[in-house]
Amino acid sequence: MTEFVLDPRLAADSEHLATIRGVQARMMNDARFPWMILVPEHPGASELFDLPKSKEANFMDVICRVGAAMKAEYAAEKMNIAQLGNVVTQLHVHVIARWMSDLAGAAPIWGVGKPVPMTDAEKAERRAAFLRVLAALS
Amino acid sequence: MTEFVLDPRLAADSEHLATIRGVQARMMNDARFPWMILVPEHPGASELFDLPKSKEANFMDVICRVGAAMKAEYAAEKMNIAQLGNVVTQLHVHVIARWMSDLAGAAPIWGVGKPVPMTDAEKAERRAAFLRVLAALS
Repeated sequence: MTEFVLDPRLAADSEHLATIRGVQARMMNDARFPWMILVPEHPGASELFDLPKSKEANFMDVICRVGAAMKAEYAAEKMNIAQLGNVVTQLHVHVIARWMSDLAGAAPIWGVGKPVPMTDAEKAERRAAFLRVLAALS
Repeated sequence: MTEFVLDPRLAADSEHLATIRGVQARMMNDARFPWMILVPEHPGASELFDLPKSKEANFMDVICRVGAAMKAEYAAEKMNIAQLGNVVTQLHVHVIARWMSDLAGAAPIWGVGKPVPMTDAEKAERRAAFLRVLAALS
């Protein structure tokens, strides 16, 4: 079996937080939204349903647990959870905490402005919050 | 337990195709993209992780099976699968067949133009294709 190699664009846009049950949890470098991406370390997968059945169920469960923990950590109004992959085809799922008062409001975040790189202080704060999210996974 | 009632906006924007394993499969009325929404018939859920554990796993499996069957039916380049719900908070998941040559190209479909209502003929054709998708579920 081919080894898993993270897509270079995902590597450039995000930072590794932890690998949980075979899934990389990564922090997107965007100060505007608490935004994690989850990447199962399985070579060649592009869609959720490309994973072998047991890995699919595991990944879906990790997505739900991270979503729930992130909503609680941030007291978010809503979570947005999406597999898009039109540009980067390597399977990755976006998990984003949302508020009607945030920069995208009622709209999805894609197509609303551009990512705003975090300062070192913002990065440290968000990393700590995201590590609490991952530590809270049941 | 409160009875499940479909959100009126979802009811207005989409048509019922079938109910599979407790999940309503509905056709969005938009000629631009093959676009289904999946709504678990569970009252009060807003997030994937609001469902009881067994219903969550069932719903995630239905999402994956519909995604795979829709990709095959349409020979799509990519599937977009998303839980957003910033406007309609009732839990619903978008399943959309995508091509780089479609109207949104590399972008997610939200924020790109407005839905284009289907003609009766387009509706009949898409309904038939979507019913084949649902019949193909393993």
